[in-house]
Amino acid sequence: MRTSKEYREKILSMRPNVYMNGKLVGRDHPDFEPGIRTLALTYDLVDDPEYADLLTATSHLSGEKINRFTHMHQSTDDLLKKQEMTRKLCLVCGRCIQRCMGIDAMNGLSLVTKDIDNAKGTNYHERFLKYLRFFQDNDLVGNAAQSDVKGDRNLRPHQQADPDLYLHIVERREDGIVVRGAKAHNSIAAYADELIVIPTRALTKEEGDWAVAFAIQADAPGIKLISLPHNHRKRKHLKAPIEDYGTMHALTVFDNVFVPWDRVFMNGETEFAGQLASQFATYHRHSYTGCKPALSDIFLGATALMAEYNGIGKASHVRDKLAELITVGELVYGAGIAASVKGFKSASGTFAPDVVFTNVGRYHAGVNIYHEFETLADIAGGLAATLPYEEDFYSPDTKDDLEKYIMRKSDVCAENQHRAYRLVENLIASSTGAATGISGIHGGGSPVMEKIAIMSKYDIQARKNVVKYLAGIKD
Amino acid sequence: MRTSKEYREKILSMRPNVYMNGKLVGRDHPDFEPGIRTLALTYDLVDDPEYADLLTATSHLSGEKINRFTHMHQSTDDLLKKQEMTRKLCLVCGRCIQRCMGIDAMNGLSLVTKDIDNAKGTNYHERFLKYLRFFQDNDLVGNAAQSDVKGDRNLRPHQQADPDLYLHIVERREDGIVVRGAKAHNSIAAYADELIVIPTRALTKEEGDWAVAFAIQADAPGIKLISLPHNHRKRKHLKAPIEDYGTMHALTVFDNVFVPWDRVFMNGETEFAGQLASQFATYHRHSYTGCKPALSDIFLGATALMAEYNGIGKASHVRDKLAELITVGELVYGAGIAASVKGFKSASGTFAPDVVFTNVGRYHAGVNIYHEFETLADIAGGLAATLPYEEDFYSPDTKDDLEKYIMRKSDVCAENQHRAYRLVENLIASSTGAATGISGIHGGGSPVMEKIAIMSKYDIQARKNVVKYLAGIKD
Amino acid sequence: MRTSKEYREKILSMRPNVYMNGKLVGRDHPDFEPGIRTLALTYDLVDDPEYADLLTATSHLSGEKINRFTHMHQSTDDLLKKQEMTRKLCLVCGRCIQRCMGIDAMNGLSLVTKDIDNAKGTNYHERFLKYLRFFQDNDLVGNAAQSDVKGDRNLRPHQQADPDLYLHIVERREDGIVVRGAKAHNSIAAYADELIVIPTRALTKEEGDWAVAFAIQADAPGIKLISLPHNHRKRKHLKAPIEDYGTMHALTVFDNVFVPWDRVFMNGETEFAGQLASQFATYHRHSYTGCKPALSDIFLGATALMAEYNGIGKASHVRDKLAELITVGELVYGAGIAASVKGFKSASGTFAPDVVFTNVGRYHAGVNIYHEFETLADIAGGLAATLPYEEDFYSPDTKDDLEKYIMRKSDVCAENQHRAYRLVENLIASSTGAATGISGIHGGGSPVMEKIAIMSKYDIQARKNVVKYLAGIKD
Amino acid sequence: MRTSKEYREKILSMRPNVYMNGKLVGRDHPDFEPGIRTLALTYDLVDDPEYADLLTATSHLSGEKINRFTHMHQSTDDLLKKQEMTRKLCLVCGRCIQRCMGIDAMNGLSLVTKDIDNAKGTNYHERFLKYLRFFQDNDLVGNAAQSDVKGDRNLRPHQQADPDLYLHIVERREDGIVVRGAKAHNSIAAYADELIVIPTRALTKEEGDWAVAFAIQADAPGIKLISLPHNHRKRKHLKAPIEDYGTMHALTVFDNVFVPWDRVFMNGETEFAGQLASQFATYHRHSYTGCKPALSDIFLGATALMAEYNGIGKASHVRDKLAELITVGELVYGAGIAASVKGFKSASGTFAPDVVFTNVGRYHAGVNIYHEFETLADIAGGLAATLPYEEDFYSPDTKDDLEKYIMRKSDVCAENQHRAYRLVENLIASSTGAATGISGIHGGGSPVMEKIAIMSKYDIQARKNVVKYLAGIKD
Repeated sequence: MRTSKEYREKILSMRPNVYMNGKLVGRDHPDFEPGIRTLALTYDLVDDPEYADLLTATSHLSGEKINRFTHMHQSTDDLLKKQEMTRKLCLVCGRCIQRCMGIDAMNGLSLVTKDIDNAKGTNYHERFLKYLRFFQDNDLVGNAAQSDVKGDRNLRPHQQADPDLYLHIVERREDGIVVRGAKAHNSIAAYADELIVIPTRALTKEEGDWAVAFAIQADAPGIKLISLPHNHRKRKHLKAPIEDYGTMHALTVFDNVFVPWDRVFMNGETEFAGQLASQFATYHRHSYTGCKPALSDIFLGATALMAEYNGIGKASHVRDKLAELITVGELVYGAGIAASVKGFKSASGTFAPDVVFTNVGRYHAGVNIYHEFETLADIAGGLAATLPYEEDFYSPDTKDDLEKYIMRKSDVCAENQHRAYRLVENLIASSTGAATGISGIHGGGSPVMEKIAIMSKYDIQARKNVVKYLAGIKD
Repeated sequence: MRTSKEYREKILSMRPNVYMNGKLVGRDHPDFEPGIRTLALTYDLVDDPEYADLLTATSHLSGEKINRFTHMHQSTDDLLKKQEMTRKLCLVCGRCIQRCMGIDAMNGLSLVTKDIDNAKGTNYHERFLKYLRFFQDNDLVGNAAQSDVKGDRNLRPHQQADPDLYLHIVERREDGIVVRGAKAHNSIAAYADELIVIPTRALTKEEGDWAVAFAIQADAPGIKLISLPHNHRKRKHLKAPIEDYGTMHALTVFDNVFVPWDRVFMNGETEFAGQLASQFATYHRHSYTGCKPALSDIFLGATALMAEYNGIGKASHVRDKLAELITVGELVYGAGIAASVKGFKSASGTFAPDVVFTNVGRYHAGVNIYHEFETLADIAGGLAATLPYEEDFYSPDTKDDLEKYIMRKSDVCAENQHRAYRLVENLIASSTGAATGISGIHGGGSPVMEKIAIMSKYDIQARKNVVKYLAGIKD
Repeated sequence: MRTSKEYREKILSMRPNVYMNGKLVGRDHPDFEPGIRTLALTYDLVDDPEYADLLTATSHLSGEKINRFTHMHQSTDDLLKKQEMTRKLCLVCGRCIQRCMGIDAMNGLSLVTKDIDNAKGTNYHERFLKYLRFFQDNDLVGNAAQSDVKGDRNLRPHQQADPDLYLHIVERREDGIVVRGAKAHNSIAAYADELIVIPTRALTKEEGDWAVAFAIQADAPGIKLISLPHNHRKRKHLKAPIEDYGTMHALTVFDNVFVPWDRVFMNGETEFAGQLASQFATYHRHSYTGCKPALSDIFLGATALMAEYNGIGKASHVRDKLAELITVGELVYGAGIAASVKGFKSASGTFAPDVVFTNVGRYHAGVNIYHEFETLADIAGGLAATLPYEEDFYSPDTKDDLEKYIMRKSDVCAENQHRAYRLVENLIASSTGAATGISGIHGGGSPVMEKIAIMSKYDIQARKNVVKYLAGIKD
Repeated sequence: MRTSKEYREKILSMRPNVYMNGKLVGRDHPDFEPGIRTLALTYDLVDDPEYADLLTATSHLSGEKINRFTHMHQSTDDLLKKQEMTRKLCLVCGRCIQRCMGIDAMNGLSLVTKDIDNAKGTNYHERFLKYLRFFQDNDLVGNAAQSDVKGDRNLRPHQQADPDLYLHIVERREDGIVVRGAKAHNSIAAYADELIVIPTRALTKEEGDWAVAFAIQADAPGIKLISLPHNHRKRKHLKAPIEDYGTMHALTVFDNVFVPWDRVFMNGETEFAGQLASQFATYHRHSYTGCKPALSDIFLGATALMAEYNGIGKASHVRDKLAELITVGELVYGAGIAASVKGFKSASGTFAPDVVFTNVGRYHAGVNIYHEFETLADIAGGLAATLPYEEDFYSPDTKDDLEKYIMRKSDVCAENQHRAYRLVENLIASSTGAATGISGIHGGGSPVMEKIAIMSKYDIQARKNVVKYLAGIKD
């Protein structure tokens, strides 16, 4: 397995193709550090006794010990461990651990390439396994590039004014394909080794050029990453883990990018585009049943801490709100466990979570995220929004005043009161915190997408039949 | 195992001690039939291939095949099967299957009697096992009598104006104890073999007389069952399973009832009263993670059927509401699965579900039940409330009019439209349906009780510590 | 103005055309009494100093003092008084006062007949005023018959398999029209003087026969009222106002009913059908901003009383829930006040409430009704559903037990505890209570209808323009 | 009336006592400009025909035309105009208009000083009127300084470890008083003429030193304003009103500040501290019934615009969500109208809104604000959170890519799509937007405070009496 040092060196050695704030920047730009540091955790903790069992697995290909973030799930137990690993790692960085997306896409490809082969006599799965072996051996970080920019939502891919609004094949050559388009909301793309590209939706027959899946190095020719960092404002005095970790999103532009055949995993099989899109979504939403409870843990802990510092830790309405935060997180986590238990072994041997339980879990997380913000804002009070600049707490002109007037419970020192409010500001009153709310809705698919997934799988007719039986209706 | 015929004969042979509508009635009174018929299902279906594996188990005492409703859970798998059995049986009778409560109380006793013995050197567990063997061998139906009438909720048991407002021991004799008081909301007590009596709450040292648990025949001397049936109005023409099954609740009065020692499982151990109360509650709330999803199935099916009959089955807002009903039921069911997976083996060997997952599941069911009523009422329309009497559909004066004007989709015959609305009336516009809503909140403990259970077990401090770490607070 | 005695005598003198439970019954059938008694309040209280100013008005036609339930609103003040009168009268009968519907339909006709005349040169308004004079002079009770049975909701009136599924004109004669069809959910029709019939929806050009409005005696030839009473179970011992009042709904069948021209107020003007339907709806929803707060008052009072009797009146969570009940009722009432203040004078001189405020008020009531049930059920506890029969409290066998075990706060006597629970049973655990929930959603138009009304009137473009201005978008 | 130029000159002439980011800054620091520009609107629009009638009033003192932001309300009509003015001005600056707080405090003082005088024979009201005349004649901007920093919320003011945690009188001199303490969340304090200081809560007898109210110049000796700007990130290319306006909050430190007697309006009258606190709160919450609907207008417009640009403007679920946004805003606005209509004339002649309607309105706004964020986030999609920097849209390296891939509906140009998303980013994905959510809960008092206000005024006993009457309970 790779060390975090090796991961970092590799990233720094890549061709500069990241654009930020109007400039081409190197991957050594300081805005990358919080993201790289987050990923580094997934390497550094493999030997930590608290995480080792969760963070490693045995490759079903090589039989070797590998990082679980490169593993194809083989069983319920693998899914339970992935879910638990996700929750625990998110608590270390105080946010999304980010590396899940790549392996969720890989598991989706594992399953669907086999199904395509079975149906069409192609050999995508063999190609995929070869690539997987490379991915595992090198312990790579993959970005999942799924969301097309989508243009007019009322039109299908092939109906758009500009065909590039969904990424598509523009040329099929002897040695591979050439693609054009863009993928949006690509977290970690700027510090990933590889981009795993898959379709964003079901496609119709005339959309063969859009039915494409492949893997490509993140700095391959023609790839441009227009990036936006989501890090907390650097602190000068109050250093803390919450500011150490962060993320960066990219709009990834594919400007006639060449992909060799051994990295192409779908090429025109439109009837499988929807399955691949939704299989990735299922794996990724299952990851959310791990990470969203971690976010609930943090909101719960912060709410409880602020209540304690404010002297209202035992108030009835506070305990009521804490209990509601718990139910949100644990219903989501419980749904993920149920999805693992009720999962299924696919033709490829890869194990997949149950679609309905996965989606009700992710759905519940999505429709409650803003309520979690609201609860913390409610208990923390207005100071979350009006906390003076950090510097004011250290300037001789204002330091004494601020240390005097930030005091709440008298046995908690001013610095800790300040630290607690600075964290709350990070969580709910910063642009990064605000973005967490939005990704809490949309990441991995918004609530409306989960409803669609649920409705497509749930046996409503069976329930109608029960009711007809109870009513004595025979027909 | 007993047959339903044997169960029925036994019930009919009992001493008349049921009072209803101002009279002492025999158990052959027609209002008992819907309840007895519901219980009969639990006997009749043991050989049905669809239910056999769920409805039977192997006794850990005798090694013999027994009805799962008399089984002590030994593993995650037992809990998963109990949960699934509950959901499936509720779909046969269209309501609560009722027999869960007795076995939930028995499992609670199994676990807690052992813990008492371990702590105090008593021998309750041995007594209990002997009783259990009798219970299993005779395939008995037990009512769980837990809720005291409780008097002034602001006062503790020993502070009440009348000490009998919580059931308590009034005499300890050489051969047993004598108890007095009453237990409320005792579903099935009127057609159960046995009453399993346990405390309703945690007790303080001065409340030794209230710390009592025992089993007693439902027609033992001194027991009076003041009963209220909850059955649907008998139909003359539109016979249907929804009206075949029903329930009956009792206020069970214990007027100086004698209980021999071999049926006494707690006698003054106040420090275990709370544990027994909550251990039963945990088992029973876990049963709710099976039965409430069944009720959601029925509401979902009824809503979908009414939408179809009204011609709006494909409307966007209808599909949206169906998806929300699904998420309610499956989040609850998923929490029950997670509780089974994350359960624990107690000192007694009996397996218990995880407290937090069980309670978040039951909680979510409780806070959504009225929303399920609302959704069905919304889609079914006002006719649920204004449907003319059944007789009007068969009187020559009005039959033609009603068959003409009840028509919706023209390919569904008038009788089926009528049957569907009659069922909806049963579900949401009848006194029995209304009571289902109330028991959906309170049965097994209301949402406020689940919050208390969650808060008592959840490690909030661990979440605070995560947040302190992230904020850089060391203390 | 008429006395309640005169009203009652008139009703009893009508031709028997009410069918119930398979039989033709006279209006002296005891099931009518609770409804008739409710209407009688609107006559009896006109001289009561507490109600006189609200319950009477000055006719703009005759200049005479009339019952406000026959008045055409002339001003904001009239609307405010109508709203307040409605709330106060509902508190006397503990439910819907019922007489609002007729006058809401009359106000709608007043406004729209004038608009039709202005557009088409007809003389409906003159006819209407003549009829109104008759209506006021005789102080009549009108039922508003609007909701057609509607058949397949996916088809328009003229597309239905049976054209009668929406009431329509089958013949135009020299002396009047002949209509056929049925109107559903006709509360009070069985004890009203007159039926005021109006369209249920907007119509298209080919639906001229369905564009019809008229007034007719409730016992006119060809009219059949298939009725369902919604009264509380008669009590033998615990007499109380809650059981004195009730209602009755009818499916009103029009079997080739002749209507003379001077009672016809729309005859084929399809372009005004939607306006008339929605103008009635607006008036009626405005009435809901009076009656629904009254229901909230009752749920609030009952919740507060049960909390007090249970000894938890001061508990933090109880006070929290009471405050939420208050916000529901007063937001609805406040919206009704705003609708009155921001109303408009129509061409006819009749004053109408603002559509948006009226509809947001009614909407908020509709989406909260089941939450009000839930709150009362939550605080009252399970006894609401398992309260033994009244008779058991008076039988020598069980009286002492029940009086002993119903005790809560020791300073409230058993009978009052019993009375309080009997009321709660009526409100939330009876078929009549359950129907109140359903009519809380659908009466006057369900939430989805209010959203449609709001969207049809609200100036969304103006808000888009504000946002474009703020964003600097010029186009 | 003052011009905006005069206001600005006055502000710039003040003694520098504002600290920001560790430094003492002049009021000409660029971070002040968005706030000053917002206030300037209240001067500039007095002659605009669209605003003149709302923005001016006739002084009841001088009979002269004055800015309504200096007016004592005399009638329902004044309150209705204040509410409408607030909503309309907030739509010009796209946020809080800010000047309401000072006049809300002044109205509160007008009412309560008279009540104190009536009760205690003091002459505060005369002093106040003199000060008011000065305030009106000079058309001043007042900041309302109410919220103390409050220390341990579990302790009363006089119990705090540091008595200064609530502002209090430290010395009473012949010529005035000296005060010490701090007031938090003081929006506009840094660019206001005057600070209007009032108590934050009810006080007990031993807290006479904390019962203090006064007015003071914002740059008086001893006053230190530690400030935090909440402005949108300056744009280089996409200039737009949304970035022109902003606000600044201050922690206002009173370090032994002298206040002459003629500016002291409460001095130890502890029994009126709660009334003054809540009377200001009532006026200020009534202002929220104007400004929060404006924020709803903006969220509604932005949601509708994004839906249109994304091509889903007519989708059923979108229209459903727009309708819900409308109901939130108009229920709040309607409650404000009702509060104005049902207000009362106080002893001072100043007119005050009804407490219950005001508070249910503010409450409803507070509990829905995060839901409004959620709705916009839901419809706008993830790009709100991942929009690249503005500069990237203008750099030659990335401009073409971004203009190509931001395209949605093809008839909306790339710049407008960009402008729309930039605005949405400002609203929900920026630190300033996030702070708006928090102030949406807490500004003017959080939902828990409104519930307390409601419960203190609502006649629950009257509702209990109704229910007792209905139940037949006499006692």
